[in-house]
Amino acid sequence: MWLTGLSGAGKSTIARVLAYELQLRGLPIEIIDGDVIRTTLCKGLGFSREDRDTNIARIALVCALLTKHGVAVISAAISPYAQARDAARVTIGNFVEVYVECPLEVVKARDIKGLYEKAERGEIAHFTGVSDPYEPPAQPEIVTQTHRESVDESVAKILSYLERAGYIPAEVASA
Amino acid sequence: MWLTGLSGAGKSTIARVLAYELQLRGLPIEIIDGDVIRTTLCKGLGFSREDRDTNIARIALVCALLTKHGVAVISAAISPYAQARDAARVTIGNFVEVYVECPLEVVKARDIKGLYEKAERGEIAHFTGVSDPYEPPAQPEIVTQTHRESVDESVAKILSYLERAGYIPAEVASA
Repeated sequence: MWLTGLSGAGKSTIARVLAYELQLRGLPIEIIDGDVIRTTLCKGLGFSREDRDTNIARIALVCALLTKHGVAVISAAISPYAQARDAARVTIGNFVEVYVECPLEVVKARDIKGLYEKAERGEIAHFTGVSDPYEPPAQPEIVTQTHRESVDESVAKILSYLERAGYIPAEVASA
Repeated sequence: MWLTGLSGAGKSTIARVLAYELQLRGLPIEIIDGDVIRTTLCKGLGFSREDRDTNIARIALVCALLTKHGVAVISAAISPYAQARDAARVTIGNFVEVYVECPLEVVKARDIKGLYEKAERGEIAHFTGVSDPYEPPAQPEIVTQTHRESVDESVAKILSYLERAGYIPAEVASA
């Protein structure tokens, strides 16, 4: 499951709740969080288009290895470029693109980490949505709208898709 | 299983035969080959000590993720520095260090890829054993001596250790 969207759109939160739900269903789960990966596997990479592409390509390689061995992997990274996401789709194979959509005004107003304010002041270069582009997915498998839905609703949408697509069995209602 | 040793010592060959044997026993297997990783996950890294350390740290991260999900991972990379291997041990946890030992004279004489000749002529910088150090493991779990043993003997040593250490069940002799 490849979550893409602006910083602050809710990718990491959805990833964690989704991981919890999938674990309840007995699936081996791994979250590959873009912010974490940048401190380990992608330490030293910046935010130029080239570095972003390298970052996404590395995440995709790790996702592919885990996916190959039956792990349900949730990637949560801005991944602003359509081309890099499409390359990740090819690398990984079983790819479910989830567009975590949230209008720029809303994530700016939230600004949980204070990053948008810093970016507006020019203190952070190459900031997606401010000084760097974000290319929305043209044909994502799922769109969640975190300004209109609760986290549970977004996760339910994803679970419902995974059931319909045959990735997970349909949930049996408990008595 | 962390295979370490000079270029040409036989790491990749042992890794493949070992992988085959473990697959026969029903284990999910992944080989992380240093040469391959340098064209993907570690593209752009050179052979300075710092770059080598980064290379090994990245391989270790990927090994750790796969190991966590029950995959038997075989890493085959020169990994010349003891410190980097010890860090990998900590990162991965279930770590079996296999010293693929072969005297420098023998790997030079083999020189399958012609790399030692090039290194001797100064055409390759930072070449382990010629212009860069190799630190043999002080306390590896297993030592294979590829100048004295066949590949099958080396692999049998590793399988025997894995059985004794409880990583795999003892093989039942077929009738």
